[in-house]
Amino acid sequence: MFAEILTIGDELLSGHTIDSNSAFIAQKLTERGYWVKRKTTVGDDVKEIVAAVSEILQRRPELLVISGGLGPTHDDVTALAVAEALKKELLLNEEALRRIESFYKSLYERGLIDDPDLNDARRKMAYIPEGAELLRNEVGAAPGFYIQKGPTKIFVLPGMPKEMKAMLENEVLPRIAGKRFIQKKLLAEITDESKLAPILSEAIEKFGVRIHSSPKGFGRYIGIIIFGENEEIIENAKRFMEEKGIVFEQGW
Amino acid sequence: MFAEILTIGDELLSGHTIDSNSAFIAQKLTERGYWVKRKTTVGDDVKEIVAAVSEILQRRPELLVISGGLGPTHDDVTALAVAEALKKELLLNEEALRRIESFYKSLYERGLIDDPDLNDARRKMAYIPEGAELLRNEVGAAPGFYIQKGPTKIFVLPGMPKEMKAMLENEVLPRIAGKRFIQKKLLAEITDESKLAPILSEAIEKFGVRIHSSPKGFGRYIGIIIFGENEEIIENAKRFMEEKGIVFEQGW
Repeated sequence: MFAEILTIGDELLSGHTIDSNSAFIAQKLTERGYWVKRKTTVGDDVKEIVAAVSEILQRRPELLVISGGLGPTHDDVTALAVAEALKKELLLNEEALRRIESFYKSLYERGLIDDPDLNDARRKMAYIPEGAELLRNEVGAAPGFYIQKGPTKIFVLPGMPKEMKAMLENEVLPRIAGKRFIQKKLLAEITDESKLAPILSEAIEKFGVRIHSSPKGFGRYIGIIIFGENEEIIENAKRFMEEKGIVFEQGW
Repeated sequence: MFAEILTIGDELLSGHTIDSNSAFIAQKLTERGYWVKRKTTVGDDVKEIVAAVSEILQRRPELLVISGGLGPTHDDVTALAVAEALKKELLLNEEALRRIESFYKSLYERGLIDDPDLNDARRKMAYIPEGAELLRNEVGAAPGFYIQKGPTKIFVLPGMPKEMKAMLENEVLPRIAGKRFIQKKLLAEITDESKLAPILSEAIEKFGVRIHSSPKGFGRYIGIIIFGENEEIIENAKRFMEEKGIVFEQGW
C-alpha cells in the first residue's frame, strides 16, 4: 500500500513556513501501514499543481493526500488545479455552501468579522470537482474533498494545521484501510554508527523488517526504529542484533 | 533563476522527522533571488533517488540542492544514486579520504569513539561522482559535492542540519549568483482575508511584485510578504494597497 503526499503553498517554498503538515500526515499514514514513498511541495500555481498531481497519478499510488490552497484568497487555487488535472468540472456543492455560510455567520455573531455575507472569495470555497465527495471541516471554513482516480484515493485537505489535522483524523483515516504496522523505537548504545551498518543490514535481510537509524551526533546513542508486521518479528530482529553485540535501551 | 530542492531520508517519509532542512535551504535560496519551484522528498532508496533526480533535471532548473543520505550507514546511498542518475562512475576522492581519516582521528583523540580506523562504512563517504568537486564539511565526516549537469548546478549536502547549514553557507552560497531579492513582511489589519484578495491581485498585476498572504486565524491581522526587485517597487505596491483601504503594521 503505497502513498504520496503533496503540500501546496508559496510560503513552503520561500522557507517562511516549515512543512510540519506533511510530517503529520506521513506519520498517520505510516501508522496505518502505508508506505509513503514520496512527498512533493509546489506553490500556489495552477500549472505547477496540475503537473505535480498528474505525475503522482502516473506512479499509481493507492493513496494521495494533498494539503493546502483551499482557502478564500487569490492564491488558493488547489481545487481548480486538481479538477483540471483530473479533467473534471468544478461544481458548486450546495452542502459546502451552506456550511461556509453558517461558518461565517457564526464568526460574525462572535464579533470576529465585520460582514457575514458570502462574497465571491468565500463562495469560491464551495466549488469542488465533479464526482468528488465533500469532507467536513469542523474547525474552519474551507471544506476538503475526496475523489478516486484509477487506483488512487485522493484526499484534498486545507493547509491550516488545525483544520488539516481534524479533517485527516475524522474524515480521511476512517475512509482508508486500517491495518496497523508496528514500529518500535530504541536507542542503540554504540559509539559509531558505521559499525552498526552491517548488523542492521543483516537483520533487515533475515527478518524482513525495515530499520531507520538516525545519527544523534557522535555521542553514545543512535536512534533506531524497527518497522515490522507484528511484535514477534520485531522482537526477533532485536534479539538477533543484541546477540551481535548491540546494547539497546528503550525509546527516545 | 529557478531552483529545486530534494531532501532524502526514510525518517522524513515516516513522519519521525520534520523536514526543516528544506525550509532553511529554501529561505537562503529565496534571499538570493532564486525562485524555488518545487521541493521533493524521497527515501533512502537508490531507485527512488535516481527517479527523482532524473525528473528534476528534465525540468532544467538552474539550481538543484540535495540534502541527506551521505553518511556511513547502510541506508546512505545518495552519492551512489546521484552518480547513477548522471551516468557517472563513483570515484575515490583522495582529499575526501584524508579529511574523513583526520575527522575520525580527532573524534578518537577526544574520546568520542573507540576506534579511529577507516572501515568500509567510513571509507564509503570518500566516493563522489566522476567530475564532481568536493565540498568541505567543517562540522562532520561526510563531504558534499558539486557537479554541473546541462544548465543545472547540483549541490549534494549531508542531512544533519548543523553540517548541511555550514556547508550551504560556506560552500554553496559563494558558488551561486548573488542577486538579492527584497522582501518586506507586513501585518495587514483586516478582519477577513477574503476581502483582501482582489486588492492583492491588483497590486501583483500593477507592480510586478509577488505577494504571499498567511491567514493568522480569524483575528484582526493577516501576515503579508511582498517580494520585489527593489525597495521602491515594494513601497509603491504597499502605498497602492493602503490607498485601497488596507492598514499595515510593521513586521511579524
